[in-house]
Amino acid sequence: MAASEYSLRRALVEKQSSIESQGNAVRALKASNAVKADVDEAIEKLNALKLEKSSIEKQLQAAVSGNPDSSVNKEAFRQAVVNTLERRLFFIPSFKIYRGVAGLYDYGPPGCAVKSNVLAFWRQHFVLEENMLEVDCPCVTPEVVLKASGHVDKFTDLMVKDEKTGTCYRADHLLKDFCNEKIQKDLSISAEKAAELKHVLAVLDDLSAEELGAKIKEYGITAPDTKNPLSDPYPFNLMFQTSIGPSGLSPGYMRPETAQGIFVNFKDLYYYNGNKLPFAAAQIGQAFRNEISPRQGLLRVREFTLAEIEHFVDPEDKSHPKYSEVADLEFLMFPREQQVSGQSAKKICLGEAVSKGIVNNETLGYFIGRVYLFLTHLGIDKDRLRFRQHLANEMAHYAADCWDAEIESSYGWIECVGIADRSAYDLRAHTDKSGVPLVAHEKFSEPKEVEELVIAPVKKELGLSFKGNQKKVVEALEAMNEKEALDMKSSLETKGEVEFYVCTLGENVTIKKSMVSISKEKKKEHQRTFTPSVIEPSFGIGRIIYCLYEHSFYMRSSKAGDEQQNVFRFPPLVAPIKCTVFPLVQNQQYEDVAKIISKSLTAAGISHKIDITGTSIGKRYARTDELGVPFAITVDSTSSVTIRERDSKDQIRVNVEEAASVVKSVTDGHTTWADAWANFPHHSGSVED
Amino acid sequence: MAASEYSLRRALVEKQSSIESQGNAVRALKASNAVKADVDEAIEKLNALKLEKSSIEKQLQAAVSGNPDSSVNKEAFRQAVVNTLERRLFFIPSFKIYRGVAGLYDYGPPGCAVKSNVLAFWRQHFVLEENMLEVDCPCVTPEVVLKASGHVDKFTDLMVKDEKTGTCYRADHLLKDFCNEKIQKDLSISAEKAAELKHVLAVLDDLSAEELGAKIKEYGITAPDTKNPLSDPYPFNLMFQTSIGPSGLSPGYMRPETAQGIFVNFKDLYYYNGNKLPFAAAQIGQAFRNEISPRQGLLRVREFTLAEIEHFVDPEDKSHPKYSEVADLEFLMFPREQQVSGQSAKKICLGEAVSKGIVNNETLGYFIGRVYLFLTHLGIDKDRLRFRQHLANEMAHYAADCWDAEIESSYGWIECVGIADRSAYDLRAHTDKSGVPLVAHEKFSEPKEVEELVIAPVKKELGLSFKGNQKKVVEALEAMNEKEALDMKSSLETKGEVEFYVCTLGENVTIKKSMVSISKEKKKEHQRTFTPSVIEPSFGIGRIIYCLYEHSFYMRSSKAGDEQQNVFRFPPLVAPIKCTVFPLVQNQQYEDVAKIISKSLTAAGISHKIDITGTSIGKRYARTDELGVPFAITVDSTSSVTIRERDSKDQIRVNVEEAASVVKSVTDGHTTWADAWANFPHHSGSVED
Repeated sequence: MAASEYSLRRALVEKQSSIESQGNAVRALKASNAVKADVDEAIEKLNALKLEKSSIEKQLQAAVSGNPDSSVNKEAFRQAVVNTLERRLFFIPSFKIYRGVAGLYDYGPPGCAVKSNVLAFWRQHFVLEENMLEVDCPCVTPEVVLKASGHVDKFTDLMVKDEKTGTCYRADHLLKDFCNEKIQKDLSISAEKAAELKHVLAVLDDLSAEELGAKIKEYGITAPDTKNPLSDPYPFNLMFQTSIGPSGLSPGYMRPETAQGIFVNFKDLYYYNGNKLPFAAAQIGQAFRNEISPRQGLLRVREFTLAEIEHFVDPEDKSHPKYSEVADLEFLMFPREQQVSGQSAKKICLGEAVSKGIVNNETLGYFIGRVYLFLTHLGIDKDRLRFRQHLANEMAHYAADCWDAEIESSYGWIECVGIADRSAYDLRAHTDKSGVPLVAHEKFSEPKEVEELVIAPVKKELGLSFKGNQKKVVEALEAMNEKEALDMKSSLETKGEVEFYVCTLGENVTIKKSMVSISKEKKKEHQRTFTPSVIEPSFGIGRIIYCLYEHSFYMRSSKAGDEQQNVFRFPPLVAPIKCTVFPLVQNQQYEDVAKIISKSLTAAGISHKIDITGTSIGKRYARTDELGVPFAITVDSTSSVTIRERDSKDQIRVNVEEAASVVKSVTDGHTTWADAWANFPHHSGSVED
Repeated sequence: MAASEYSLRRALVEKQSSIESQGNAVRALKASNAVKADVDEAIEKLNALKLEKSSIEKQLQAAVSGNPDSSVNKEAFRQAVVNTLERRLFFIPSFKIYRGVAGLYDYGPPGCAVKSNVLAFWRQHFVLEENMLEVDCPCVTPEVVLKASGHVDKFTDLMVKDEKTGTCYRADHLLKDFCNEKIQKDLSISAEKAAELKHVLAVLDDLSAEELGAKIKEYGITAPDTKNPLSDPYPFNLMFQTSIGPSGLSPGYMRPETAQGIFVNFKDLYYYNGNKLPFAAAQIGQAFRNEISPRQGLLRVREFTLAEIEHFVDPEDKSHPKYSEVADLEFLMFPREQQVSGQSAKKICLGEAVSKGIVNNETLGYFIGRVYLFLTHLGIDKDRLRFRQHLANEMAHYAADCWDAEIESSYGWIECVGIADRSAYDLRAHTDKSGVPLVAHEKFSEPKEVEELVIAPVKKELGLSFKGNQKKVVEALEAMNEKEALDMKSSLETKGEVEFYVCTLGENVTIKKSMVSISKEKKKEHQRTFTPSVIEPSFGIGRIIYCLYEHSFYMRSSKAGDEQQNVFRFPPLVAPIKCTVFPLVQNQQYEDVAKIISKSLTAAGISHKIDITGTSIGKRYARTDELGVPFAITVDSTSSVTIRERDSKDQIRVNVEEAASVVKSVTDGHTTWADAWANFPHHSGSVED
């Protein structure tokens, strides 16, 4: 808790008790019929104390709620974005005419185009540039696969039920809301109580069901809608369950991630890659999560598109051939240490982070760099993007290192891409469950001579001494590790016998030299067999798109100054439509020219739209700015037309014949708008009004 | 049943009875110790009869199984295709290491690339060219939506269970297998019996649960694996069921088609389109069908990608502005009448089929033409593609017309695209269930004057005459249609009274002129409100891709003639990789050139692969032919390289700098291989060996 908040809470308690004493003093004076001047003086003092208390309260209020203006602004900004998105059908609450389903959203036409552009760029940037093996597996997944991956047992959230109505809530959400509410709204709680609540918030993710339940009881938290008592917390599996085939005997789930489809295919993919490491496989597809009570609008949904990469690599060599291409990048990183010591994210050179061991290895570093390039290319603001390392308690026990690409939005910092070195965990889990070894081999250029420890118990001798216990002694001898065996060997050689603890018997036995032979033998090995490590960048496509909407949105005054107009500053790569074609006025000649241009745009593969409505050109521009269309061609003559750029509103004049190729060149990124501005005459028409 | 089969079965029965009589004759001669010559002659006659029988049996066998050679060939061909597809990871049985799940398949790397190319072309050919509104809705769908669409009640197959083991089978499949088996293998059944079985096969799809059950009992059909008795058939819903949210109280299903997501959004999409008709919405996505026992490999699966278009149109105007662009196309069509009269599909000009009313309307015709262009562009053989009209009993009662694009494969003719005029059915169903009117409006350019019938019962008069029955009489009067009302009006005017049957009273009453006033009044209407018709082309992407594999596959001898090599003749549009780059021998200089070319290919957006293994160039060509890679660049010098075309194996020589642009131009379709062949020197190297 910040020092100022702590001292303010203390000051508030003291002031309250001063007010009470002074109140008593005033009442005592009045009862004793003291002189008016004394009474007035006492009252004045009391009022002064009350004023001071009120001032402390205001300071405390400000301290606990951060900057209250900024939080109001964030809310208003989000409303403006979301209203525009919904009005222009970037998204639609699914099944709206049936009052919808929480956590399910449709992509409407412009949203669908943005999504398809983002996925096409993802495929270009990752799959094609890196020669990844893309696969496409079903969503319906049999139980055995998700049992092996751990999802059947552990993919749960803790839930509580309203004991009367049966309504379900996420237990941690209720506790979190309670603590935040208390801290921010209840100024009367003591500094110690506030500190305790803050501690609860900090450790919330680590609380067990029992601990969560105890806190909920202790704080008297009830169901938010009805104030009814709540059940104890219990785990609820977040997978949508179903049944495969007609018998009802084959349980299945809708996959919670796409990664498992890749892991179970490792053997075939490794073969396809010529039995060589490293290689990466990738998958884009739907994933499902049956949230208990979805909140945060488009950010927490029950069905979403994931794009996942599993890069398989030799655990002994995590270098990456193209690492040098990203090593010089500099961006906001938030290593574990900075988080623990209360610092904030800062700009770090990626190469430095890797060489200092802050990022575990080159391959992990390479993907962090590639993700940075991917996101900023889409239009994510680099100052509102950071790579945050998982704290020790956030990371699975098997993970070697894990970084989240977090994007700042009106909801705070949102995890949009996870980049984890999951070591050999997943392949081992499926090897164990399926019995099919998911391993790689390294052929040695020439056979290696290796020494192998050989422990050979002499069963006859052991039988004579230990009778029925012989088998257990043999097993214990064979189970010795190298050090134990070599120690025994030297003891036997020097002393002839040695005391040996057999855990299955729970006692020491005496082993004589004749009872076991221990030696090291030489053997030729032709290859090394190992389970590859996997480095997994996993992209929540819907979250990236939502953050992109927020980062791209701005408002500006109309030329007349009487209206606020919305604009999405999407780069052409992302924009749902690249270009609109407007005949300036409704007239057959202009419409014919517009159709000719439209044909050339189609031939050039530029998505566009003709708008021949009689609406004023200014309104038509505003309408497409709100869809983030970067360029507009306006037909105002039969020989030449204007091209307008969305954000600058600048216009150039080009011949009808070149219009499509100019737009193609700037949308493909072969040239920039600045080039076009330099090469063509400017048009300073007031057509916009 | 074909005439020849019928007469052969009859001949066989007759021959059998001749053999029996002749056998009796021989035995009688022997018993009576007849002279040897007579006995021998009788035996000779018997043997001749047996030979004749055997000859008839052979003819019959051939008649019932079609061309037995061709069916063996088909099977062998399919095996060759499927083996190649599976070995080269075009597809992988899902969750293979856990012994898989029937009806679930993964697309491996080349399959995934083919799929993504097919979908990209679909988007280009339909969505972009036609300015369709693409949407993307969740797979998880609440029950109410699928209740309205009819899927909860009617999306079922009839199932029977092995009464001892509980194993489930599709009832119609068992009956079908039984009939086919009997007809093809059992030559002893009578011509009448064979005709009956053929009739069962013909009406199989129309049989009710009771009728199917009765046939199964009558024929003594048992469980195929155990020969145990079977249960009566009962409906099994083919949707994967699940539960939305944690309460267990909100049933949901994995969508069986993508169309419903579009229908429920009609209102928003209509608004987005400026409240104008016609317009089309489109969706690509996963759909699910929990098949009882999937057969036919990649053609009948439990999860698949659908691409669906819903084209909304005024039911009074189903013309299409771009219809003329497809009207001259000619291809195989199979109208209802030809099917019923036992003819086969023939080439018809689409425009003629529409103008003759064989195809119901222009818009339906337009989409049939566009589907033809789409499929043939992908590489579907136009001679193995036909458009088959649904028979009256196949079509839903509400459908105006329906055509399937069927592609011939080794499994027979496979429905790959359905193109249906579903009239207003879907929008009406959701209007009724949701209470939200899913309608369109046509604004009249000037208000229309319409005459409206007004029936005004005079309640006071009626009350006096009919007392307690007054209300029923009033209701009956108001319920009259226009003709009834006008008849009554004229009777009342001429006779003053009229007998009127009130069904709720079950008797005639006498209506007098004073009891009701009937008139026609004029009213101004400003717009017409109506439910649009929907024309739905629905594409099974996986089936199209599988048929494409079969149509693209061929085998040829290796140059040495010692091996059969597999080739997929994919057009560049579809090919998983457009080009390979091979240094002829392992050598640093050639590898450097290969890398330079690879960079230019990446810059040009051409997916490709470098193969620097030391394998012979001939083997490397064969390896990529089997993946359907259309072009190979072989680096055999540092200044110029060869480009080889897959099917002709022809090679041209080009400079290193132009290699990428030549390949780009032929893969983009801007030029053809013939152009390249004409413009560049030919290379006649024997490198291939």
